[in-house]
Amino acid sequence: MNMADEFSRERERLNELVLKHANRDIKRFYNLDSQVYREGALSERVKELMGLVASTVLRCDDCIAYHIIECKKAGVSEDEIIETLSIALVVGGSITIPHLRRAIELWEELNGPREI
Amino acid sequence: MNMADEFSRERERLNELVLKHANRDIKRFYNLDSQVYREGALSERVKELMGLVASTVLRCDDCIAYHIIECKKAGVSEDEIIETLSIALVVGGSITIPHLRRAIELWEELNGPREI
Amino acid sequence: MNMADEFSRERERLNELVLKHANRDIKRFYNLDSQVYREGALSERVKELMGLVASTVLRCDDCIAYHIIECKKAGVSEDEIIETLSIALVVGGSITIPHLRRAIELWEELNGPREI
Amino acid sequence: MNMADEFSRERERLNELVLKHANRDIKRFYNLDSQVYREGALSERVKELMGLVASTVLRCDDCIAYHIIECKKAGVSEDEIIETLSIALVVGGSITIPHLRRAIELWEELNGPREI
Amino acid sequence: MNMADEFSRERERLNELVLKHANRDIKRFYNLDSQVYREGALSERVKELMGLVASTVLRCDDCIAYHIIECKKAGVSEDEIIETLSIALVVGGSITIPHLRRAIELWEELNGPREI
Amino acid sequence: MNMADEFSRERERLNELVLKHANRDIKRFYNLDSQVYREGALSERVKELMGLVASTVLRCDDCIAYHIIECKKAGVSEDEIIETLSIALVVGGSITIPHLRRAIELWEELNGPREI
Repeated sequence: MNMADEFSRERERLNELVLKHANRDIKRFYNLDSQVYREGALSERVKELMGLVASTVLRCDDCIAYHIIECKKAGVSEDEIIETLSIALVVGGSITIPHLRRAIELWEELNGPREI
Repeated sequence: MNMADEFSRERERLNELVLKHANRDIKRFYNLDSQVYREGALSERVKELMGLVASTVLRCDDCIAYHIIECKKAGVSEDEIIETLSIALVVGGSITIPHLRRAIELWEELNGPREI
Repeated sequence: MNMADEFSRERERLNELVLKHANRDIKRFYNLDSQVYREGALSERVKELMGLVASTVLRCDDCIAYHIIECKKAGVSEDEIIETLSIALVVGGSITIPHLRRAIELWEELNGPREI
Repeated sequence: MNMADEFSRERERLNELVLKHANRDIKRFYNLDSQVYREGALSERVKELMGLVASTVLRCDDCIAYHIIECKKAGVSEDEIIETLSIALVVGGSITIPHLRRAIELWEELNGPREI
Repeated sequence: MNMADEFSRERERLNELVLKHANRDIKRFYNLDSQVYREGALSERVKELMGLVASTVLRCDDCIAYHIIECKKAGVSEDEIIETLSIALVVGGSITIPHLRRAIELWEELNGPREI
Repeated sequence: MNMADEFSRERERLNELVLKHANRDIKRFYNLDSQVYREGALSERVKELMGLVASTVLRCDDCIAYHIIECKKAGVSEDEIIETLSIALVVGGSITIPHLRRAIELWEELNGPREI
């Protein structure tokens, strides 16, 4: 199984576990977390890219993987992903590079290698 | 003098001080930091909003103030600012709220109070 | 005016500003943020102390001030505050010390100097 | 072997390695780190829960696993764990969710699935 | 009064306040915190510069000010300060720039403007 | 294969992937990132130790592994590594301990067990 599918399946399995044990506050947070990326004044594509910037500067591999996959679903282009990661790299510094590597590895899996 | 002008003047004064003492690496970083927000596959407006998201989740008041001012110059709307800050709030949690307060205070200064 | 009152007044003024500009997601986050400290399986006192630990290791002065004031209202003792700050100091390291200083200064203002 | 035992064994193996190479300062830190959770004005249970809050908002899986296991030993209830994690989630934001998932998975392993 | 003296005086005043209220764990941490920068295999100068790197990437203005002042006392040169801040800037990213500005402002106050 | 070689090989493989997809800004950041550790007023050895301090307080295992390996190549002694990690531990707190463990495990692999 590829990385993206394995990640998504494990994420779903554990989210079900969380919601089984969750109280009302955790459930409300989960609802809010899915609402906030819905299309509004800003498009869903831009919001997913914002999720990617935030996840990269905060250095959370799972969050990065999730937003990379959502960006792919939303039709984001490679140039948009790379410009977004450039901003995260400059803001967050070299400490983000290990996450950048894994982000691009996942992106390549979803898209095939870049044609030059 | 208003907050935005005072911030921008002090920022400029200190950046000149940095560049007077800087070595080549710091100067190259400064150049890179201004390049990365230039229009490309993504518009300058979206890139400034990404700078705002990153600055808010990393909780840097000076960086937030800078990007709020740049967003205003780039013609970003209030709805776009608020949606961007919502994403930062959900990703970064209540620990970002003090910065959200100051971001919105500065935004109101730049725009006047919201009409309802 | 003392530090605690000045802090609380400014916090309230800016929260009103946020809620004037807020969208539904920000309002829902604010509600959730006040719900989560309500008495449940854990007492309100313990929850405020947890808010203090989290704020100290994340190094947010405004959040620390808020929870110090709430701890005082909830009847927390000085020994409980100091043990809580000790845990935060050991977990978060010397980088938390500047915040520890300001936390204890505010606590002393609220209580008067410790009697030995 | 289950996750909790595997984690504890590996942690012990590596702590022995650290102490074999450690200087006096590192050894003193280790001592301080075990002192600070001892019962005092606050109970050991509350202190372990504080360790869990701090570890979750700082997003350290190993530290979370350690405090989840110590909470179980100290007789903490599931409602107390869940309320503690709710506070960490609201303070620390959605970026803590991947850690929340793994915390609850470990808690379930230690307790069996929640009965409804 | 200049910035360095004002900072040092306020820091001393608040540290006395902390130690008046501190328990044994906090006092032991304070001792450890002063031990760790003492000359050993590494010189005191290098250790103060390490304190500066750590403080800059963790973005703590008070800690940066403290180590800048200690570096000056220990006879660190401007080139060494600037190279140290360059590493912190590259590792920590543009989010450290506001702290870099204030670090260099304080350094200039301690040394006078750089001669070119 | 040992940990150090496995880490270095995987790091190189992913860095090639990044550079295949990178834009000019990411490439310039990579160049800057290698420049900043070159010998100058400070020796390469001290700069690698600074990279280690920064990586440890920011809690990035990949960055720690990289600098541990570079320190070994640069002829850093065990006492220097341990003093450096002590500073990181005191500044960054117990939350850095899991990273300290893995740093020392890797260091031991590179050097063999410490002789007492």
